[in-house]
Amino acid sequence: MTVSKDVSGGVALWRRIADAIRLDIVGGKLASGDRLPTEALLAERFSANRHTVRRALAVLAEEGVVGAEQGRGTFVRSARRLSYPIGRRTRFREGLRGQAASLVSQSLSHRIENATAAVAAALGLKPGAKVVRTEGLSIADGRPISRSTTWLPYRLFPDFAERIAQLQSTTAVFASYGIDDYARASTRISARHADVEETKLLGLAPGAILLVSEAVDVDSAAIPISYALSRFPAERMELVV
Amino acid sequence: MTVSKDVSGGVALWRRIADAIRLDIVGGKLASGDRLPTEALLAERFSANRHTVRRALAVLAEEGVVGAEQGRGTFVRSARRLSYPIGRRTRFREGLRGQAASLVSQSLSHRIENATAAVAAALGLKPGAKVVRTEGLSIADGRPISRSTTWLPYRLFPDFAERIAQLQSTTAVFASYGIDDYARASTRISARHADVEETKLLGLAPGAILLVSEAVDVDSAAIPISYALSRFPAERMELVV
Repeated sequence: MTVSKDVSGGVALWRRIADAIRLDIVGGKLASGDRLPTEALLAERFSANRHTVRRALAVLAEEGVVGAEQGRGTFVRSARRLSYPIGRRTRFREGLRGQAASLVSQSLSHRIENATAAVAAALGLKPGAKVVRTEGLSIADGRPISRSTTWLPYRLFPDFAERIAQLQSTTAVFASYGIDDYARASTRISARHADVEETKLLGLAPGAILLVSEAVDVDSAAIPISYALSRFPAERMELVV
Repeated sequence: MTVSKDVSGGVALWRRIADAIRLDIVGGKLASGDRLPTEALLAERFSANRHTVRRALAVLAEEGVVGAEQGRGTFVRSARRLSYPIGRRTRFREGLRGQAASLVSQSLSHRIENATAAVAAALGLKPGAKVVRTEGLSIADGRPISRSTTWLPYRLFPDFAERIAQLQSTTAVFASYGIDDYARASTRISARHADVEETKLLGLAPGAILLVSEAVDVDSAAIPISYALSRFPAERMELVV
C-alpha cells in the first residue's frame, strides 16, 4: 500500500496520463520516433505536477512504449500492439505470424477436475464430468501477451496436458489425437482489470486492463473440443474480427 | 482530487474489490439472488478494512449489480451484461433485440470535417477528403451502453447527420440513400480506461473500463460507407463473435 494524492475515482492521475499518451500513440496522433511534449507541457495539459508526469513516463518507458534520450527528450518507441485475428478458423500461432520474431507458449500447470456448470455448458458435458484443465502463458519477443486457462473433455483427451507441454501448440496436440481440423464456434469478448496473479505473470503494472476472450472450438462434427478463457494485456494486444 | 490510502499501482483497493465481485458474478461463482459474503468476510478476503469493502459495495449497488436488503445482507441483482454480436452482418439494434425493453439512440452532434490519415485510410479516401462526423450515444433501459463517433464519405451522404437525428437508426439512414444491404468489413477490438468526457456521458464511475471497437462497413460493391469508433462500458456490454 502506498499513499497517492492524485486519485480520482480509483484511478491515479499518473495512470490516466500514461493511458492518454498510449492512446495518442495507438490512435496515430504520435508516431514511432516522435518526440513527446516536454514534461512542463504535459503537466499543463493534464493539470498535474511534473512529478506525476514523470511517473507516467517512467511506466511507459518500462513498458517500452517510450524512451528517454539523454539531453534530447522522450521519444515514442515502436511498441505497437499485436493483432490477433478471431474468426471461424482461429489459430493463435498462425494469427500472430509475422508480428513477432519469437512466440513461446509455456504450459504452467494442469490437472483433472470436475466441470463446473459453466465449463460443462460450454463443452456440452454434464456438470461434474471429468475435464482436463491446463494453465498457459504465451510470450512474444519476451513480452507476455496471453494468460490462458483451457478445459477439454477428459474422455477425448486424457493426456492433453502432457502433450501440450511437449508440442507447445494446441493445433499440434489436436492433430496428435487425429483431429486435423477444428473451428471456432463462438468467442465472447469482455474487459476487466488484471488481478494480482495475472499482473505478476504477465509482467504488468498493477491496475492494467485485460481483454478477456471465452472461446469454444469444435471438431468437424461440431463436437466441442475445448473451452478457453484467455486474458490479453490490452496495452499489448488487440483482437481483429 | 481526493486522497485515498488504499492505492496500489494506480487502482484503489475498493475498485479492485468491486471488480473481483463483478467477476464472480459474470463468471458464475455468484448467481442472481445469491447472498454476498458478509462485510467482515470480504474485508478478510481482500485484506481491506470494512470501510473500503463498504465503498466497493456502494459502487456495485449504484450500478445495480448488488442490492442491500434491510437486516438480510447484500444480494446479487440480475444486472447481466448485454451481448452485442459482431459478424459479417452486424446491426446494432437487431443484435440487442430481446435483451433490453427500450433502446434509444441519441444523435449528440455532427459536423463536416477533413479526413485525418486514419479516417481516410479506413474509408478508402484521400487524406483531407470531406467526411461527415457524427457523435452518438445509445441507451438501453436507461443505462448508456455505447458512445460512438462515426465518419462517412460526405460525397455519398451529404446530409447523413440530419437523417440519423430523425431516423435514429444507421440501417434506416443507409436505406434512405438506397443502400439496402451493407456488411461489416472489419472490426478491431481493444480496451482502455474511459476518459473524463466518456465517464460523464456514459454515467460511469471514474476509472471504468471501455471496450473499444473500430469498425468499417461496406456496401454490396465493397465500397466503404462508414467508419465507426464505438466505446462500450465493459461492465455493461460484451461482444460476441
